[in-house]
Amino acid sequence: MIHAEGYAATGIQGIVESVDVPKGSFYNHFASKEAFGAEVIDAYFDRGQEKLRAFLCNADMAPLQRLEAYFDDRIKALRAAGFVRGCLLGNFSAEVADHSALMREHLVVHFAAWGNFFADCIAEFPADLLARFVLNSWEGALLRMRAERSAAPLIEFKEIVFGKLLA
Amino acid sequence: MIHAEGYAATGIQGIVESVDVPKGSFYNHFASKEAFGAEVIDAYFDRGQEKLRAFLCNADMAPLQRLEAYFDDRIKALRAAGFVRGCLLGNFSAEVADHSALMREHLVVHFAAWGNFFADCIAEFPADLLARFVLNSWEGALLRMRAERSAAPLIEFKEIVFGKLLA
Repeated sequence: MIHAEGYAATGIQGIVESVDVPKGSFYNHFASKEAFGAEVIDAYFDRGQEKLRAFLCNADMAPLQRLEAYFDDRIKALRAAGFVRGCLLGNFSAEVADHSALMREHLVVHFAAWGNFFADCIAEFPADLLARFVLNSWEGALLRMRAERSAAPLIEFKEIVFGKLLA
Repeated sequence: MIHAEGYAATGIQGIVESVDVPKGSFYNHFASKEAFGAEVIDAYFDRGQEKLRAFLCNADMAPLQRLEAYFDDRIKALRAAGFVRGCLLGNFSAEVADHSALMREHLVVHFAAWGNFFADCIAEFPADLLARFVLNSWEGALLRMRAERSAAPLIEFKEIVFGKLLA
């Protein structure tokens, strides 16, 4: 619900109704909506991490090919979804980072871990710097994808990153 | 208000109160909050366009230097603001592009115009492709800036774009 509608637009009432539990149960598990948001951020990254690991730690492929295969897989999935929603970490960055130190801290940790996965595939010095740039550029391409509702920003991201920047 | 708090979080009531006019007046000028949002998008880009023109059409500087001066100016302003809010077009892309065809259309038009300003400063072929990539990477760096609340993603954007991609 948060990925589709946004954090502010998703009420606790709607969340508890969707899983058919009383509203009081929510507060048995989460101190606040903000604490829940931080756990949503963690859960989202944990799930994405399996995919990151499957693609980017695949010793059967050359490092740069792994990274390219990862983006190809993401573009395929985003196309299947109709170019909506984008990345939940990017969305939280846009919507709540200015207003919640707690959620912002969780975003910082996961973006750093995500960037490290990329850095391991970018041999060129300085790999960590390039890796963070590639990750941020991907987040920007996802924003633009949602504005255009088209794969063009994603395809062009790949053209520049693999055809020029990392070539 | 929309730039600081987001589109959903900004109510029409708050808008009319901030300028001390009755709520009915809002609907004399705007058919809906969505129509108002589209005009906010236009007004934001119109204002930004003056700065784009001042920096990127400055015949006294080499084209790539103009582009670098533009980003230097933006980074300085974002630092002065404490690394919050980011780009309103990016924020609208994150928050409403999935849900409003009208606002999405306005975003598409302005992103295209913005990319054209960049393309004019990037001599290398294919300039328009590189220009769109640079713009989307900048939007991503702004998202990351808000998560980190630091200039690092902006500085690193510049290092890669001017030190490697366009060098």
